[in-house]
Amino acid sequence: MPGSRLLDELMDALRCLPGVGAKSAQRMAFHLLERERTGGRRLAGALDAAMQRIGNCSRCRNFSEDPVCALCASATRDAAVLCVVESPSDLAAIEQATDYRGHYFVLLGHLSPLDGMGPAELGLDLLARRLDEGEVGEMIIATNSTVEGQATAHYLAQMAENAGVRATHLAQGVPLGGELEYVDRSTLAHAFGSRQSV
Amino acid sequence: MPGSRLLDELMDALRCLPGVGAKSAQRMAFHLLERERTGGRRLAGALDAAMQRIGNCSRCRNFSEDPVCALCASATRDAAVLCVVESPSDLAAIEQATDYRGHYFVLLGHLSPLDGMGPAELGLDLLARRLDEGEVGEMIIATNSTVEGQATAHYLAQMAENAGVRATHLAQGVPLGGELEYVDRSTLAHAFGSRQSV
Repeated sequence: MPGSRLLDELMDALRCLPGVGAKSAQRMAFHLLERERTGGRRLAGALDAAMQRIGNCSRCRNFSEDPVCALCASATRDAAVLCVVESPSDLAAIEQATDYRGHYFVLLGHLSPLDGMGPAELGLDLLARRLDEGEVGEMIIATNSTVEGQATAHYLAQMAENAGVRATHLAQGVPLGGELEYVDRSTLAHAFGSRQSV
Repeated sequence: MPGSRLLDELMDALRCLPGVGAKSAQRMAFHLLERERTGGRRLAGALDAAMQRIGNCSRCRNFSEDPVCALCASATRDAAVLCVVESPSDLAAIEQATDYRGHYFVLLGHLSPLDGMGPAELGLDLLARRLDEGEVGEMIIATNSTVEGQATAHYLAQMAENAGVRATHLAQGVPLGGELEYVDRSTLAHAFGSRQSV
């Protein structure tokens, strides 16, 4: 933008948002300046506070500005069930889709030795201690259905076995509303093989 | 997002950006927290500075953090040509598409008496004084090709006539690369009526 260095800087900084290129950044900057100065100032404050103060819960590793997050601190959630997910967005997806009322553990990744992601990086020592506490009766393994996610799930299942905790994983098969014609081969083969009596 | 008030606040604040709904806001917030904390902090600073300090140039009304913007202050631009546009984004579009090296005047709107946008709101007194200075030889009227834009263009043309300044407007017709079959009727009729010898 010719004429304003601050505007150039704003457009450039906006491009750190996912899916925002030069054109969208320009549209966003003009929109904020022309019609949303209050919203823009509020966003600046919210961004600054979130980036500086949000860390990870010391118990479940989910995003939290407090040492222990609201989910872990909640008295109304069932401490006997622990759902293990790869990322905070997986946690959010499960919270939004289900009526699950147990606790979570967030790995912040998956096992991937080549990328330097081993058991320590995933906080599995913390998870092992949690299982040893004896409060958890069922561990729901909800890692992604990818190769790395499955490998991680396998490792988690062994941990549960060692601790004498029942482990479960999400059902796999044809997605609801999916047309068989368009379901990928491996999913279809798996669903076919794991068919259930009606 | 269960567990973090600051994260909720960030997701909510992100929705002031155009085209960003709940789902994108969540994706952006997680992306920034997981992978772009530095970028997020930089964006917070850029937003805050831009929202607080960007005002309008006292000469051309374009966005500027200085009393007179870099375009107006530039010694290399031709003060004999003045291009009048409705918004700073129109100015940016012309700068990006053309090699125009004259000056601009930004109306920050168009004539729309019902919305309270009269000559005073568009800074037309400022424009009139500019034309009276005698430095401007040609005024390029580059308002939008909408009803309000055309009405504004008509008003501007009269101002130029009163000041004895030559007024021009952008050529209207079939867009480059446009297939006649898909060009709207009024544009096609206009282009047909204004056909030119080859």
